[in-house]
Amino acid sequence: MTRTVFYTATSLDGFIADPDDSLDWLMTRQQDRGGPLNYDDFIADIGAAAMGRTTYEWVLDHEGPDAAWPYDIPCWVFSNHDVPKIEGDIRHVRGDVTDHHAEMVEAAGGKGVWVVGGGDLAAQFADAGLLDELIVYIAPVFLGAGAPLFPRRQELKLTELAQNVEFACARYEVVKASG
Amino acid sequence: MTRTVFYTATSLDGFIADPDDSLDWLMTRQQDRGGPLNYDDFIADIGAAAMGRTTYEWVLDHEGPDAAWPYDIPCWVFSNHDVPKIEGDIRHVRGDVTDHHAEMVEAAGGKGVWVVGGGDLAAQFADAGLLDELIVYIAPVFLGAGAPLFPRRQELKLTELAQNVEFACARYEVVKASG
Repeated sequence: MTRTVFYTATSLDGFIADPDDSLDWLMTRQQDRGGPLNYDDFIADIGAAAMGRTTYEWVLDHEGPDAAWPYDIPCWVFSNHDVPKIEGDIRHVRGDVTDHHAEMVEAAGGKGVWVVGGGDLAAQFADAGLLDELIVYIAPVFLGAGAPLFPRRQELKLTELAQNVEFACARYEVVKASG
Repeated sequence: MTRTVFYTATSLDGFIADPDDSLDWLMTRQQDRGGPLNYDDFIADIGAAAMGRTTYEWVLDHEGPDAAWPYDIPCWVFSNHDVPKIEGDIRHVRGDVTDHHAEMVEAAGGKGVWVVGGGDLAAQFADAGLLDELIVYIAPVFLGAGAPLFPRRQELKLTELAQNVEFACARYEVVKASG
């Protein structure tokens, strides 16, 4: 059964980017890349990814104009506007996440689907009952403003908690509306 | 050396009250009252408290019109408006937290000062270099909106992390601007 997982980092006050769409407050942090809830272990069990326009454009900017697309799994990019295209297994799509989730699950081939971000896209999956899990690296900083981790009310259940150097790392089950 | 500590609960997206100033999303949660970072152990080492107007009025509403003030330590209530007065060791003050911190420390008699809330009052202590520590109970819920845990940028250092039933509980040192 394929799991759809929002794996991300956040400030302690729930922002995934600062008001300038910067991640400077995150990238400087120390972590143990073999430690609790680390990315390498996570990505090893992921077969497809989904991201919104802002996240996609951040990846392009961050990797630089001549850099290669960093993911070797198929990636769905949700945008209702045209975005720059680069080489890679990237499916540019519009509209509702429910129209594309089955394709992602199939492409994942028994592995999980990673919702890379942002919070609004994760909320669309959750609203449709398609988000199973959240794994979050909580950075030791308040930002005070920025892009929200998640823009709506949603119940969760804490299933794992561990410190990874500077970060509090937590795994949550997404509580789905019954019926 | 008296420590000034912001001890509070928050949603995972950094709100200490929902948009209706309700704590219903918090009060229903399970916790072990003898478990990690619990209130009884915390309050045993606290000698004075400070709170803003919204927090004070929430306590009055929550305790009901005939109820007793729940704290037996001296409490400073910061408000630039008139607020209802009740029996208890309550010092109603206006203006800057720096004008009153020394009195609180003296009243605490070697124990700590608790910043009860809200986030804006805690930020005023932090801005003045007077906030030493944050202890936060993170409830497993996104609220999407509400009263911010902390309204500004502030560096922290994670010093303790533990699960207490439904909550992720964390202790942070407040990183003070050097010089």
